Amino acid sequence: MNYRIEKDSLGEFKVPADAWYGIQTARAVENFPISGRKPDVDFIKAHVLIKLAAARANCQPGWLDAQRRDAIVAACERILAGEFLDQFVVDRFQAGAGTSHNMNTNEVIANLANVALGGKKGEYKPIHPNDHVNMGQSTNDTIPTAIRLACLAKLPRLKAAVETMAAEFERIGREERDTVKSARTHLQDAVPTTIGREFAAYGWILRRVITELEAVRPRLCEIGLGGSAAGTGLNTAPGYPQRVAEELARLTGEPIVASDLTAQMQSMYDLQRLSGAIRSLALELTRISNDIRLLASGPRTGLGEITLPPVQPGSSIMPGKVNPVMFEMLNQVCYQVLGQDAAVAWMTQAGQLELNVMMPALGSALFDAMDWLTHAVAAATERNLKGLKVNRARCYEFIHASVGLATLLNPRIGYMKAAEIAKESEKTGKPVREIVAAHGIMSAEAFDALVLKAARDGRID
Amino acid sequence: MNYRIEKDSLGEFKVPADAWYGIQTARAVENFPISGRKPDVDFIKAHVLIKLAAARANCQPGWLDAQRRDAIVAACERILAGEFLDQFVVDRFQAGAGTSHNMNTNEVIANLANVALGGKKGEYKPIHPNDHVNMGQSTNDTIPTAIRLACLAKLPRLKAAVETMAAEFERIGREERDTVKSARTHLQDAVPTTIGREFAAYGWILRRVITELEAVRPRLCEIGLGGSAAGTGLNTAPGYPQRVAEELARLTGEPIVASDLTAQMQSMYDLQRLSGAIRSLALELTRISNDIRLLASGPRTGLGEITLPPVQPGSSIMPGKVNPVMFEMLNQVCYQVLGQDAAVAWMTQAGQLELNVMMPALGSALFDAMDWLTHAVAAATERNLKGLKVNRARCYEFIHASVGLATLLNPRIGYMKAAEIAKESEKTGKPVREIVAAHGIMSAEAFDALVLKAARDGRID
Amino acid sequence: MNYRIEKDSLGEFKVPADAWYGIQTARAVENFPISGRKPDVDFIKAHVLIKLAAARANCQPGWLDAQRRDAIVAACERILAGEFLDQFVVDRFQAGAGTSHNMNTNEVIANLANVALGGKKGEYKPIHPNDHVNMGQSTNDTIPTAIRLACLAKLPRLKAAVETMAAEFERIGREERDTVKSARTHLQDAVPTTIGREFAAYGWILRRVITELEAVRPRLCEIGLGGSAAGTGLNTAPGYPQRVAEELARLTGEPIVASDLTAQMQSMYDLQRLSGAIRSLALELTRISNDIRLLASGPRTGLGEITLPPVQPGSSIMPGKVNPVMFEMLNQVCYQVLGQDAAVAWMTQAGQLELNVMMPALGSALFDAMDWLTHAVAAATERNLKGLKVNRARCYEFIHASVGLATLLNPRIGYMKAAEIAKESEKTGKPVREIVAAHGIMSAEAFDALVLKAARDGRID
Amino acid sequence: MNYRIEKDSLGEFKVPADAWYGIQTARAVENFPISGRKPDVDFIKAHVLIKLAAARANCQPGWLDAQRRDAIVAACERILAGEFLDQFVVDRFQAGAGTSHNMNTNEVIANLANVALGGKKGEYKPIHPNDHVNMGQSTNDTIPTAIRLACLAKLPRLKAAVETMAAEFERIGREERDTVKSARTHLQDAVPTTIGREFAAYGWILRRVITELEAVRPRLCEIGLGGSAAGTGLNTAPGYPQRVAEELARLTGEPIVASDLTAQMQSMYDLQRLSGAIRSLALELTRISNDIRLLASGPRTGLGEITLPPVQPGSSIMPGKVNPVMFEMLNQVCYQVLGQDAAVAWMTQAGQLELNVMMPALGSALFDAMDWLTHAVAAATERNLKGLKVNRARCYEFIHASVGLATLLNPRIGYMKAAEIAKESEKTGKPVREIVAAHGIMSAEAFDALVLKAARDGRID
Repeated sequence: MNYRIEKDSLGEFKVPADAWYGIQTARAVENFPISGRKPDVDFIKAHVLIKLAAARANCQPGWLDAQRRDAIVAACERILAGEFLDQFVVDRFQAGAGTSHNMNTNEVIANLANVALGGKKGEYKPIHPNDHVNMGQSTNDTIPTAIRLACLAKLPRLKAAVETMAAEFERIGREERDTVKSARTHLQDAVPTTIGREFAAYGWILRRVITELEAVRPRLCEIGLGGSAAGTGLNTAPGYPQRVAEELARLTGEPIVASDLTAQMQSMYDLQRLSGAIRSLALELTRISNDIRLLASGPRTGLGEITLPPVQPGSSIMPGKVNPVMFEMLNQVCYQVLGQDAAVAWMTQAGQLELNVMMPALGSALFDAMDWLTHAVAAATERNLKGLKVNRARCYEFIHASVGLATLLNPRIGYMKAAEIAKESEKTGKPVREIVAAHGIMSAEAFDALVLKAARDGRID
Repeated sequence: MNYRIEKDSLGEFKVPADAWYGIQTARAVENFPISGRKPDVDFIKAHVLIKLAAARANCQPGWLDAQRRDAIVAACERILAGEFLDQFVVDRFQAGAGTSHNMNTNEVIANLANVALGGKKGEYKPIHPNDHVNMGQSTNDTIPTAIRLACLAKLPRLKAAVETMAAEFERIGREERDTVKSARTHLQDAVPTTIGREFAAYGWILRRVITELEAVRPRLCEIGLGGSAAGTGLNTAPGYPQRVAEELARLTGEPIVASDLTAQMQSMYDLQRLSGAIRSLALELTRISNDIRLLASGPRTGLGEITLPPVQPGSSIMPGKVNPVMFEMLNQVCYQVLGQDAAVAWMTQAGQLELNVMMPALGSALFDAMDWLTHAVAAATERNLKGLKVNRARCYEFIHASVGLATLLNPRIGYMKAAEIAKESEKTGKPVREIVAAHGIMSAEAFDALVLKAARDGRID
Repeated sequence: MNYRIEKDSLGEFKVPADAWYGIQTARAVENFPISGRKPDVDFIKAHVLIKLAAARANCQPGWLDAQRRDAIVAACERILAGEFLDQFVVDRFQAGAGTSHNMNTNEVIANLANVALGGKKGEYKPIHPNDHVNMGQSTNDTIPTAIRLACLAKLPRLKAAVETMAAEFERIGREERDTVKSARTHLQDAVPTTIGREFAAYGWILRRVITELEAVRPRLCEIGLGGSAAGTGLNTAPGYPQRVAEELARLTGEPIVASDLTAQMQSMYDLQRLSGAIRSLALELTRISNDIRLLASGPRTGLGEITLPPVQPGSSIMPGKVNPVMFEMLNQVCYQVLGQDAAVAWMTQAGQLELNVMMPALGSALFDAMDWLTHAVAAATERNLKGLKVNRARCYEFIHASVGLATLLNPRIGYMKAAEIAKESEKTGKPVREIVAAHGIMSAEAFDALVLKAARDGRID
Repeated sequence: MNYRIEKDSLGEFKVPADAWYGIQTARAVENFPISGRKPDVDFIKAHVLIKLAAARANCQPGWLDAQRRDAIVAACERILAGEFLDQFVVDRFQAGAGTSHNMNTNEVIANLANVALGGKKGEYKPIHPNDHVNMGQSTNDTIPTAIRLACLAKLPRLKAAVETMAAEFERIGREERDTVKSARTHLQDAVPTTIGREFAAYGWILRRVITELEAVRPRLCEIGLGGSAAGTGLNTAPGYPQRVAEELARLTGEPIVASDLTAQMQSMYDLQRLSGAIRSLALELTRISNDIRLLASGPRTGLGEITLPPVQPGSSIMPGKVNPVMFEMLNQVCYQVLGQDAAVAWMTQAGQLELNVMMPALGSALFDAMDWLTHAVAAATERNLKGLKVNRARCYEFIHASVGLATLLNPRIGYMKAAEIAKESEKTGKPVREIVAAHGIMSAEAFDALVLKAARDGRID
């Protein structure tokens, strides 16, 4: 391979001749051969957006001149349009705080800008990666801000996926409002309920989770950009924090504002809170997926109250088997998301004094969690939930067999006597309706009517 | 010991003669000899409060008569006043969903009420634990509501403790606004900052966490009481959910309202979200405690920028040693709180179909987390933070030695040349001020002035 | 209350007049009003055992004289016999490393010994808590050793509980060797298997877990006692580490030996490894409990392949309901144990330089995990597993309905054709045996024989 | 793109014309657009190895003929040599249990074998993916076995990396045996110790962790291959489990044996135990990395006892800054590994009845943990630990300033008087040596000699 030689404060180092990045990136590539995974694309772009906004905010007398600003802005715009993404090459596990990624961005922009101005790669004139592209900035403040912006980019996609899923649960909830079935508590026969009530509740809780995701959004918009080194704001132009925040607000459409520069550098709290909201979502989705797979169990040896549309043969050895693969996949993703959240928690508490150096891996863990969960929820909704069929006959069958029906007798004969009916049903295998009739409490038909009323109205009075 | 014999749907069982609880409690005591830990007191009272509110809400034609209502209410009030708390005897690890605790409450109230009406313990006339005390209720809906109410009782205490701690950090932040010191990023010498800036940031982030705790509060007020069995509302009096919620609102002063009866029984989401907010708090407190202990390290072989007031001798073998025991204790509590939160997360996802049977242990884990953290934060604030002393001389000493001062030269001589000054300082051990003077960049005194300006104003221009 | 005044290096402090503990304990009680939970009893005794062993090992010219040794030993023996346990009063969340508990022990022993020798409480003559009871020792080395010894005391109880449970699973495995049923994979109908095979596998895996628990035991016996302060061995008598280890080996019957004094103080690895083994156990028990509860679901609307003996009424509202409360309790304990393990992991990594100050809470988390799990496993085994009944008729019913039977046709007609049979069964609701006969593949009776052979032998050739 | 049409039990589907995989793989690619991450290479190969071994074990009368066996074996060998790895295209988050990956492997091998025999892609004659490549196998047994084999391939690499790191710590331990320094407990001045003692302890504990990793190895060799569907062994050739295990033992050089076919399908215990051992490693590495970064803190405002070799400029804004980037990276990897382990734990408990469908993601989480940690440990060792320099002068400086030296006086003047000396030193700032001399306890020189003896020998008698 062809190389050019560049020099930094540690000395000379080879850089691939055609690379748009420079020496510090090349050093980092050599230093960190860990996961082979390149940076998240939303994060690359978010960081470039900061460079663009900073160039504009820095353009004032004694700071950045208009020529350099324009060249930097133009370079940033090309990257934001999707060019040169392959020039962001440092492993996700890298230098603490993300110095390597920050320099990768600084170097690529500087080289693009200099070449556009007639210069050469690696010479960093007239635009220097540190002095101009990074002006008034620091790894310390651009990286946490970029993580926030990348999360803001991903959040609407996650929200949309969950909303679509919630809407499907609500649809089934409406359509099956009158599909009576036996509730199960402790996995044991319980009182009559409906498929509609169950599925509407899944939708209801997902809507509730969405409000929490939404509640984190404004917090992510409170950025610490302008803290430069150690949250002090050293070497920043007058009014820079406000100007750069306004610029980012304009560019992203989010209500971005400057916040406490020191605290927002010390602490990963807002990001951890986002991770916490995603964890909550994953826990609810785990529960709901487990329920769906249980309700779909069978067809003969399980509950079989619902059937999921087959999307692929279920077994390499058992012919005709169809498995709930989409929700199994969702379960797996949720478990990995719980792992990502655990990693975020570990990294959040690892901040020390003015900085949390764990940011690169913290951001990466969060980005994966958001992307994977978004895709998984969307796929499960699209391929399985939308085609879910309720086996109404099966549900009716259960309702009349359930020992839990004895509860309907409480107001009439009291808990203790109703318990005797239940036990007789359990022991003899006779449905409660028959026993009720035999004991002269009411006719079997009257009892049936009571059951339907209880299921649909949640009351029998 | 003397016993009386009681009978339930499983047959006869011995109950201690003087016990106010009854047969189902006695069975549970025998069934669950696990931790030896009795229920949380806020939880006992919250559950009794529900019984009281339910008795009032149920007092309508065809449901509970006024005599029974009054007797139940009077019994509840005695327990709420602190009597008979030793009658709540079922282990924290017990029957799924908390049936045992619900029956313990039902039995104690029934016996108290019946005896007050001239009856005898264990006879359950005229007031029956299931038919009257538990009227229109179920373990399924009273237990999750009681957990919510207990958390609502604890939340203000936790909040107050954190606010007091935040206020102390803010006070130090104000008092040490001008105490310049060297920032440290990556634990390495960085640019000038102040003790004030650091400590104010600790206060700032704790205030932010408090807002999240506050945000969960209204969610906890949305209860599923009235869902009775399986969230169906079966066997409840007309208008019961609204009436009982209003009653509880009146009794607690919290804006309690009836919510989705099915979803709030299926899902522990709101409680898990509270646990998540507490986890966030514990993570920030872990980080801050670690910082405090690091800044207090020494006195001679550490950073020594602050001194914590001694509260007890530090070592059994090393005389004169004083350790940061209060923050070490806080660290330990935070770690256990993270464990409690992990337990809550596991239990949250374990809901199945209409119910989450893990509620008793879930509630217990949350209660402990809240209590222990409240006490630990208060103790650390009171005994250590309030007496914390800043060693200003030590801070000044560091600031002038720091290699990180070279950053102040960036705007004047550029990053690359400033790096050479830094390296010379690092190698020779000479302070940056001397090298700057020797190179004729500026006088040592002018540089000192720059350093102080940078530290206090966060800018040098 | 009456007090006496004692004095330490921080000054004077009140101690309850009748307390056997002294000033440092009294300070700690005031400093740490956190959980209200007193120390674990096995831990109290383990720590006292170390004091006893140290007194013997220190009895050599120039170190501890025989009179003091005998007085210390006698005091220890009274505590080990169960006296004065109420004198160990410092909260579980306390001074880092456990200095407070160490001093509590030193003070109680010193006072007991001095009073026995005719002295007075609080005067510490002729036996001083630090100079004599703590001779050659330190919080740094006695606390981690005491945690190890306490775990060694608890381990056989945990192991015994798990072995009894494993034996029950194996018994059912043998008794139900021929009880054919339908396997379920992905919760979907699968090939024929037996209850015996399933339950034997539960036993098999528990035996496997026990071997891991056993493997940690010798590691726990490698102690760092003799490291005194910071793992240096400073101020210890010649040959002390070996002598005190031999003494402890004699006293406990465990093969205790002196290990690396510095590493075993720095690192909580062995204890974390024990916690990891317990976590593994909890994960397997979670899975198995979930299975048991699923197999016991019903009686009418679930799988109903097994019935658990009722130990208490299942519901406050649903009469006659019987819930799998013992395994629900076991599930809850397992989840809390997972939380304890998470706390242990957090605390393990928090060691810094020569010491891990999180030891008191780390030990406490581990002790609770072991005790609670031991009790929960024993109770679930005794009250539920021993009386578990298999519903053979239900199992047979399922086996003949299962669509998974089509797999038996693979070797005869290939996967693709077998899949068509399966789909026909699924669609029409006809059992595979009928379709096979209708297609002339074999008679229904021949197919039945095949099914039984497959279930019992795991093969059909 | 060009397509061919293939057919399975669900109907027709398009497959890219040049793909070596077939219809079920193509369906899975469409079903699971989740992470974009392809399977782990060790896992791909391990699964192919199983197919190869199975073909050999199945070659017996009435089962697989020699021609088919040879064709399958030849196809497998090409993949094992590194060809066609890009044909394994199903996302890491996929069908429960890994049916999609199993069919991907079956289809690629079948197509390769058929084409080699003159057939065409997609026609599956004479070799059928299910009937021949998958003969006597199932996703249920090949996937968990392949995960084990992949872990066995990775384990020696991880072990080697940790051993190299341990050896470096031991080397420093030897070289700095006499470098006296002040120990720090609770981060406070403690007694004299040596750099050698500290670093040797790091090595010692890593060796201890390695033994646990080794202990899991034989467990991973106990495979459940031959369980086919649901652990029953259905449709397997006589003697198949033993034969295929022997074949795999021969091919891998590991002592692979057939184990309990049902239990090893139900339970992920052995894999979770491996994950637990890796977690233990990550926790120790977290602690050690934290220590290294703390000891390297400075150069002027931290402890500065060691210097790590610079591998890249440390800051984009602070010139001349050098950060401990390799250990910061190692910390980040460890935290993500803890996240992976959490995911594995969640998935381990999620097994239900005969199968754990979470296997694909479980395997993936484990593979990443092993690879990333291996690379991170190797990089940190190679680039930072090997060049680590101890600042002996700094260490000596600390030792004479430490207030902890007062401990050396205990045997001579008792704990209480020594505490007064320590307090005087702390208050006045005078070194203990001077105070000792001033009090006439011993000369300053005699005290210095005592300090050195204490540090090196761990005793002063």
